[in-house]
Amino acid sequence: MVRIMATGVFDILHPGHLHFLRESKKLGDELVVIVARDSVAEKMKRKPFIPENIRLSMVSALKPVDMAILGLEGNIYDILNLVKPDIVALGYDQEFDETKIIEEAKKRGITLKVVRISKYSDSEFNGTRKIIKMLKEKEIDQSSGH
Amino acid sequence: MVRIMATGVFDILHPGHLHFLRESKKLGDELVVIVARDSVAEKMKRKPFIPENIRLSMVSALKPVDMAILGLEGNIYDILNLVKPDIVALGYDQEFDETKIIEEAKKRGITLKVVRISKYSDSEFNGTRKIIKMLKEKEIDQSSGH
Repeated sequence: MVRIMATGVFDILHPGHLHFLRESKKLGDELVVIVARDSVAEKMKRKPFIPENIRLSMVSALKPVDMAILGLEGNIYDILNLVKPDIVALGYDQEFDETKIIEEAKKRGITLKVVRISKYSDSEFNGTRKIIKMLKEKEIDQSSGH
Repeated sequence: MVRIMATGVFDILHPGHLHFLRESKKLGDELVVIVARDSVAEKMKRKPFIPENIRLSMVSALKPVDMAILGLEGNIYDILNLVKPDIVALGYDQEFDETKIIEEAKKRGITLKVVRISKYSDSEFNGTRKIIKMLKEKEIDQSSGH
């Protein structure tokens, strides 16, 4: 059984997330998704719009996802002890160093591969920031139009 | 095999949608979801923020959903001819008249039940409008806070 681990904030679900999760799942048998804690997301990127428990329940409901859990608050690599993945799937824009992940896994007695998933570019709906921007523009259109 | 049909706009997916779809699925074996066309949603409610093809792909990716298809543009009851459901599941706030659905089905030679799904109220994230409002407020917080 090949277990894949993918991580992310998954703030407002969009087709880019689906692409990432589907492609990740194809790498093996079981996809475990780590949904970043609000506190961690805020430190690494920005405060999520949607709180962690809601983000977790939405990700859990997606077909490619076998299990979704909230991340840890401390050392981001400690989740490897729990999940023990065979493969770590990274999104095209996730700023993780592949070598560092492999090293941190080795320290924990885990041998894994890191696979970078291609960008999904078939849509303008491939980023939470873009969606927010678009929603705001549309709302302006709608309030002036009706 | 009991086929359930549920319909909606599913503009920005939230836990209220998941609740509706999970409860609908529990009514039988196969859940077919009709995702409203942009043009129809605009007439009945408001113009969706997310275009129909993206809404369709997101709904299709949810675990309770066996099949999702775009609605028809004309008579909203004509979809019954295609889906031939045993049960039509209605959201707690969907403004359909149960008797009218049963009548329109009968005209088409279809006998069905209509079941009203309970409200999901365990979260503030149970409506697209609310989410948009909340996103705008949060964005203001974030831009002033950092």
